[in-house]
Amino acid sequence: ATTSHGTIKLAVIPGDGIGQEVTAEAVKVLEVASPAGVKFEQTRYDLGAERYLATGEVLPDSVLDEIRQHDAILLGAVGGKPNDPNLPPGILERGLLLRLRFELDHYVNLRPSRIFPGVPGPLADPGEVDFVVVREGTEGPYTGNGGSLRVGTPHEVATEVSVNTAFGVERVVRDAFARAQRRPRKKLTLVHKTNVLVHAGSVWWRIFQSVAAEHPDVTTDYMHIDAATIFMTTDPARFDVIVTDNLFGDIITDLAAAITGGIGLAASGNVNPDRTAPSMFEPVHGSAPDIAGQQKADPTAAILSAALLLDHLGYADAAAAIESAAIADIAERPAGSSPTGGRRTSEVGDAIAARVAG
Amino acid sequence: ATTSHGTIKLAVIPGDGIGQEVTAEAVKVLEVASPAGVKFEQTRYDLGAERYLATGEVLPDSVLDEIRQHDAILLGAVGGKPNDPNLPPGILERGLLLRLRFELDHYVNLRPSRIFPGVPGPLADPGEVDFVVVREGTEGPYTGNGGSLRVGTPHEVATEVSVNTAFGVERVVRDAFARAQRRPRKKLTLVHKTNVLVHAGSVWWRIFQSVAAEHPDVTTDYMHIDAATIFMTTDPARFDVIVTDNLFGDIITDLAAAITGGIGLAASGNVNPDRTAPSMFEPVHGSAPDIAGQQKADPTAAILSAALLLDHLGYADAAAAIESAAIADIAERPAGSSPTGGRRTSEVGDAIAARVAG
Ligand SMILES: CC(C)[C@H](C(=O)O)[C@@H](O)C(=O)O
Ligand SMILES: CC(C)[C@H](C(=O)O)[C@@H](O)C(=O)O
Repeated sequence: ATTSHGTIKLAVIPGDGIGQEVTAEAVKVLEVASPAGVKFEQTRYDLGAERYLATGEVLPDSVLDEIRQHDAILLGAVGGKPNDPNLPPGILERGLLLRLRFELDHYVNLRPSRIFPGVPGPLADPGEVDFVVVREGTEGPYTGNGGSLRVGTPHEVATEVSVNTAFGVERVVRDAFARAQRRPRKKLTLVHKTNVLVHAGSVWWRIFQSVAAEHPDVTTDYMHIDAATIFMTTDPARFDVIVTDNLFGDIITDLAAAITGGIGLAASGNVNPDRTAPSMFEPVHGSAPDIAGQQKADPTAAILSAALLLDHLGYADAAAAIESAAIADIAERPAGSSPTGGRRTSEVGDAIAARVAG
Repeated sequence: ATTSHGTIKLAVIPGDGIGQEVTAEAVKVLEVASPAGVKFEQTRYDLGAERYLATGEVLPDSVLDEIRQHDAILLGAVGGKPNDPNLPPGILERGLLLRLRFELDHYVNLRPSRIFPGVPGPLADPGEVDFVVVREGTEGPYTGNGGSLRVGTPHEVATEVSVNTAFGVERVVRDAFARAQRRPRKKLTLVHKTNVLVHAGSVWWRIFQSVAAEHPDVTTDYMHIDAATIFMTTDPARFDVIVTDNLFGDIITDLAAAITGGIGLAASGNVNPDRTAPSMFEPVHGSAPDIAGQQKADPTAAILSAALLLDHLGYADAAAAIESAAIADIAERPAGSSPTGGRRTSEVGDAIAARVAG
């Protein structure tokens, strides 16, 4: 599925809770931003906790097949009420979100982090923060390998297996080097835990070194995941591009979102760089059932995810226009106000759309 | 090996780099603090990178047997120069540090975090931070399970297996509840990633719930590891006791150290609560080869680890005296100075010892 004749086939999965509200705004801005002659043909898929609770369906194969036929996917957020006894832990995450990432081979989980002007954050003196985490998306402890024995007895044993292949590591490491090469600082940091996870660490380390040898213009370094969390709070400006495994990437990107002003602003792309299947773009935040339906959610992360989507499809200018509009909007939110600057979710979307338009 | 006749048999493993310097100060303070009638009988064990590089030995069985005969262990830090080709990654960590933790059944890895008065940290407005992380120490992804296939070929596969048993989870969860019960706020947070690591997550979750039912006076909650890193920067004051697995505990405690003023102040205990073997106390920081031998290192974390050691041995008053002395010393370090307050490592030890003495 590649872009053809100016029509972009977009699968929209709003999901649950605030996912519905923020996705509506992302679509609004996407349509305004779309370059002349480009049309979005949207198909909406109702997937998530609500559908599962009503029908028992998580991601029917037929729906997955349909989604595959699109050029890109825009996802809101997925997840029901915390501790809902009818929602076994992981059923949606593994059955829907991770299944999409794995089936569509989203091996580059892309998470940019910037401190935008005017955004209050928890750090007293963060400096100029502008980095991107390239998180591996199809391996590591996320493969669903592992199992349980003698469940519920005093002799229960549960395992989780992190699977790391040369194939999987090399392709994401190459992608990260290519991204580092396109950035002014050309710096790439590998984050892992090679001193404890010696098998996985070894394949990551060796492949990182050998790809580094092919990229003498990229400065590289290495950091254990524990040390990386320290630098993320004491000197986040040092980072340019980070490449890391699926679980470490999950952890470090939430931390990155926190120090740059919160997950209300953190966008992400689940990218299939080989374009053998559609890539998927989603805010890092969850479905926030506690504020759902109240027009309180900040749609900025979803809107910035739409910008990543446009960039991925080759519309760099349109992507940049959304980003600039969002940055300008953020900068004018009154200090001390709510994340939306005291506005309704739809008003934030309107404001950013108006800036893009005008 | 239990304390007998007022003589505490102490195994001292200074280790590498600044481990040597900071351990000397911890021993100095320990001796001054020891209650009347209590004597420390020290045996020093030279283990670490230096010994390994000179002899190829990491932890000979005979040395381990000797160490076992002590009442407690004080460890400095272990680790050689980064990327020393003669030091394979993990050889010291797994062969020495983790081997001690596993062989001596240190299933409670105890890491208190407080923001001490006068300590500058990266957060603009952290609030009153005083929590303790109870990190599981003998299971999880740290077991050394896993392996590699077709190493160095494009078909390499490397696995890491996280092993979690009902036995192992229950004992550390019980310890954490007991600690929460002894604290004024009586709050315990389980940190895991139950939505992705469903097998391990399930045994942790179920055991946590069932032990919680026996402790109605303890308030409990649950947080995914990624969300926990967010709260650690946006609202660390909310935490009281955290219980978590070995790897998540490794990550969250370095982050905790960072937000409370740096690993120069972070103490830890590798505790065997059943006292079937000596517990081990060590600063969270590493051997910092770049500043080793220069009397620049801050020995406070090592000294606070010595306080945890005394507390574990039942000398709560002596432990409290060290802690107060350290806090008083920290409070008087001039703002903007080096971590030691412009003093040599030994001068910090002298100053804290003097406060304890009088
Ligand atoms: C919801 C969960 C499965 C997911 C993950 O762990 O990848 C989320 O935390 C994220 O970072 O996208
Ligand atoms: C050195 C390393 C093996 C160790 C760990 O990962 O446990 C360290 O980071 C720690 O936290 O004590």
